[in-house]
Amino acid sequence: MPRRIYNFNPGPAALPPRVLEHIQAEFLDYKGSGMSIVELSHRSKLFEEVINDAASRIKRLLGLRDDYQVLFLQGGASLQFAMVPINLLPAKRSADYVNTGTWATLALEQARRLGRTIRVVASSEDREFTYIPRDVAVDPAAAYLHITSNNTIRGTQWQTFPNPLGVPAIADMSSDIMSRVFAPEPFGLIYAGAQKNLGAAGVTVVIIRRDLLERVPEDLPTMLQYSTYAKSNSLYNTPPCFAVYTVQLMMKWLEEEIGGLANMGATNRRKAILLYEVLDRSGFYRGTAEKESRSLMNVTFRLSSESLEEIFLTEASRQGFAGLRGHRSVRGCRASLYNGVPLAAVEALVSFMAEFERKHG
Amino acid sequence: MPRRIYNFNPGPAALPPRVLEHIQAEFLDYKGSGMSIVELSHRSKLFEEVINDAASRIKRLLGLRDDYQVLFLQGGASLQFAMVPINLLPAKRSADYVNTGTWATLALEQARRLGRTIRVVASSEDREFTYIPRDVAVDPAAAYLHITSNNTIRGTQWQTFPNPLGVPAIADMSSDIMSRVFAPEPFGLIYAGAQKNLGAAGVTVVIIRRDLLERVPEDLPTMLQYSTYAKSNSLYNTPPCFAVYTVQLMMKWLEEEIGGLANMGATNRRKAILLYEVLDRSGFYRGTAEKESRSLMNVTFRLSSESLEEIFLTEASRQGFAGLRGHRSVRGCRASLYNGVPLAAVEALVSFMAEFERKHG
Repeated sequence: MPRRIYNFNPGPAALPPRVLEHIQAEFLDYKGSGMSIVELSHRSKLFEEVINDAASRIKRLLGLRDDYQVLFLQGGASLQFAMVPINLLPAKRSADYVNTGTWATLALEQARRLGRTIRVVASSEDREFTYIPRDVAVDPAAAYLHITSNNTIRGTQWQTFPNPLGVPAIADMSSDIMSRVFAPEPFGLIYAGAQKNLGAAGVTVVIIRRDLLERVPEDLPTMLQYSTYAKSNSLYNTPPCFAVYTVQLMMKWLEEEIGGLANMGATNRRKAILLYEVLDRSGFYRGTAEKESRSLMNVTFRLSSESLEEIFLTEASRQGFAGLRGHRSVRGCRASLYNGVPLAAVEALVSFMAEFERKHG
Repeated sequence: MPRRIYNFNPGPAALPPRVLEHIQAEFLDYKGSGMSIVELSHRSKLFEEVINDAASRIKRLLGLRDDYQVLFLQGGASLQFAMVPINLLPAKRSADYVNTGTWATLALEQARRLGRTIRVVASSEDREFTYIPRDVAVDPAAAYLHITSNNTIRGTQWQTFPNPLGVPAIADMSSDIMSRVFAPEPFGLIYAGAQKNLGAAGVTVVIIRRDLLERVPEDLPTMLQYSTYAKSNSLYNTPPCFAVYTVQLMMKWLEEEIGGLANMGATNRRKAILLYEVLDRSGFYRGTAEKESRSLMNVTFRLSSESLEEIFLTEASRQGFAGLRGHRSVRGCRASLYNGVPLAAVEALVSFMAEFERKHG
């Protein structure tokens, strides 16, 4: 393995060296086929094994019952912002959205742009999206309740999911799927771009409860219908084969090397606690999210001035820490601690931050 | 390099060993960054160089003037079947389509499903799509003329493109882009899934003449507007980074190793002629496309009976030739000769076919 940087990128993000080495080792000859994984027909038995294994592992890891189906789409969460209402929100009904920041806002704006009726049933906009709202009063007649499970920009995360009995919850879990154990029952649909916890950019995982497929309108463009992917095992047309393959390998790593979501969640918690302890110690660093809403995936913080932040970021970069700059819309600093970020990287970061504080505190 | 199979897959298809080896060699450490290409932020300078270089090379190879822009989308040609009319065909106008087979039919069906007015101005359905229609009488008021430049299933290809003066031509070039020199002027938009001549599956290249961007309706879902990709340098959200990177490397190979489209076109012609000569020699093999419409990319042929075809396919597979089975909708045999298929593979196939004919003729 060549020199590795400490990669805290917000996504695309660090992947485990074991996974990267596996891809490299078999890149010229996939399982003795005489072809690279990128040269395989998507209709070949070998590729069907890849996509089926990826889906099975996702179901097993999340403990999903058989009434859920795993689909592989393209276009990222941003396309799902539109596909969810197009497929699941009939023009005569309304849907409830919780607004917890930039991505949640974009999701509800795309629904409104389609002319759909949206109710914002809870929002943390009053305090700059630095917390997760407690009270979510869902309309029992709503077509669904949409939430964003983790908010990368403000560093907040739902600790307990709402369970709007009778109304299917829909979650954008792009930035924390597979990071911890959760009960899937409230969810009718979960979607996630792969490039944080699932694999390489280029595939979007959609988990749908089968009864919701009945809502899909028949006159939509074929590629925008969830039912197209459900009926064809996500092979209606050529899928993003390489990205699906990386998801398979990441799920294999998660099951076989890490031992599942309970173990992954424990490690992720340790990583985040290490970092939050530094933030809470002296006041030199200041966490931006309210404590009970803090994200275990994206730790956002500020220093006493923007000029000191620049010095911090420059020095961090020089010492081999990448991706610590906060989102351009809020500035400051952010360490993203996705599944592929090892505990050792966080320990190194914590040491660096302590040292930086000694020098500049 | 491990053992390579002779890969005649219809897509995803063979890529040049040089390109595959390059990807493998730098997979753990992209340009000394300490990260894999799949771990780079899409907002990093390193990735911007990748996507900009890919676009520049595409423009240079095709000789495109500055009024064309290269976009990187997801969803394959199948999503373009809908995006083209959604973006470029106002409800009150009509568009002209040429129907040359399965993919062309799907394209016009998606437009009709949207409720748009479509005229089929030429079709080869009368003789089972075995030829390219000669006369294309375009309505001067049409919003565009849509064609499919190469038809993978029936093995036909436009030898000369129509030039509907004043009406922008739109082409699905998924299966023959970058395979030969052509004059881009008639085209307002060209789209192509990457997995045949451009790189790995997972990215769709769209080349649009900038004036057409003015037609894009404002109330569409953001991810379905061509203007979103044009304004953001295809970085509105996370692009399929790895697939874009493979396009960059394929275009570099095409420019620097092959020497451009004239050379590539000459090699592709030699490959196809070798194979068509076998088909025309004795009658043992029978080409299915009419001669003047024959594709240089997909050579489709039959043997005297389906049982003999099965023997042929089994024996070919045993001798290391992959991907020769015809599309399931038409059966028979097909050799796809995309850019990544070397002349040597075709020479080996031709020898095998001659030997098979001696044994079974």
